[in-house]
Amino acid sequence: MTTKRPPDEVATAYDVWSEVYDTQANATRDLDAAILQGQDPSLFRGDVLEIGCGTGKNTEWLAPRARSLLALDASEKMLNRARERPGVQHVQFFLQDLRERWPVAEASRDTVTCNLVLEHIEELSFVFSEARRVLRPGGALFVCELHPFRQLQGKQAYFVDPDTGALQNVRSHLHEVSEYLNAAADAGFVLVRARDCRDPGAPRSEVPRLLALLWRRA
Amino acid sequence: MTTKRPPDEVATAYDVWSEVYDTQANATRDLDAAILQGQDPSLFRGDVLEIGCGTGKNTEWLAPRARSLLALDASEKMLNRARERPGVQHVQFFLQDLRERWPVAEASRDTVTCNLVLEHIEELSFVFSEARRVLRPGGALFVCELHPFRQLQGKQAYFVDPDTGALQNVRSHLHEVSEYLNAAADAGFVLVRARDCRDPGAPRSEVPRLLALLWRRA
Repeated sequence: MTTKRPPDEVATAYDVWSEVYDTQANATRDLDAAILQGQDPSLFRGDVLEIGCGTGKNTEWLAPRARSLLALDASEKMLNRARERPGVQHVQFFLQDLRERWPVAEASRDTVTCNLVLEHIEELSFVFSEARRVLRPGGALFVCELHPFRQLQGKQAYFVDPDTGALQNVRSHLHEVSEYLNAAADAGFVLVRARDCRDPGAPRSEVPRLLALLWRRA
Repeated sequence: MTTKRPPDEVATAYDVWSEVYDTQANATRDLDAAILQGQDPSLFRGDVLEIGCGTGKNTEWLAPRARSLLALDASEKMLNRARERPGVQHVQFFLQDLRERWPVAEASRDTVTCNLVLEHIEELSFVFSEARRVLRPGGALFVCELHPFRQLQGKQAYFVDPDTGALQNVRSHLHEVSEYLNAAADAGFVLVRARDCRDPGAPRSEVPRLLALLWRRA
């Protein structure tokens, strides 16, 4: 007997958001894409797992670069958008609640990338331990998330509901800098590089928008 | 021929501050002491190097716990205060600009502790590489500093000048979270534990006062 989780409120919100995710102005989305594309290209040449691919804004960029690409997301409507992207015919897409065991074999991936996802997941440790499990030794985990400072300022993922015109917040959890670092250390990752990311031209005195972290599996 | 640096403005400010450092209200000083004392006691049982000991508020606590303790500070008047602390007869004190090579042999220390110092040092990489040099393999580096988010809010070390009554800022440099993490990674440290530290009873929604980081020398 299998028990099915009730529809998740985050996935449900992303189902609605999928209609306008790519068209509404979204500086966080744009900066995340720029940060990913600024990484050392060798990071994405192997067997890549993208968790929380959304409408595939990063999937489309990763697809021609990776030897293989598996993209997971909890929102069916987001996945439908992603599947329509050009050049993703060879990408495997799976509907997956990231809080449950991922459909990925142990030590089968060179890189896991996780972009603008973890603010919606309360328990970070499971995600880091799954990333550890599916990565080959020496494999990379790249995370780019809304900066904890921005979260403390009350910022979180939101969109304008295309039907009602109302601002819709997507359920988020405040994560501290230390939570990311400790979850990774506990799972057996060694930090390689960190970056406090601001919009192009923003001064250093501005609160960073994103925190990007790159680890290697020990 | 030796060249002597001109008197450093930070050391000069601390000379003045030494008269009132222990007596003026200072929540950052108090939280730093509490965080240090809350660490695993085994961290401070070996040969310990304290960089930036100031008036010795932490030195006095470390002295009976460490097998040996060497304390460095750039301010002579701060060191004079520290030498007057009870129970520090066996502690070695040295006047030392931390931006210059430390008078410590390679691989001679089990732990380096650095508390409320790095905001006054512009180039972090030298400090981390010196810490790496003087630590034994597996040795610990503990850093507790004004939280980068507080720095972005304009907070920095200051005191009330005992003579003039004026607020006196001590020259500080904005450091990002990523700067600490990258300087340590580049020097060959592996992060063990991080903590965003708030005053006792402060809610999680409050901006942390201190960032505490513990690394091991690889």
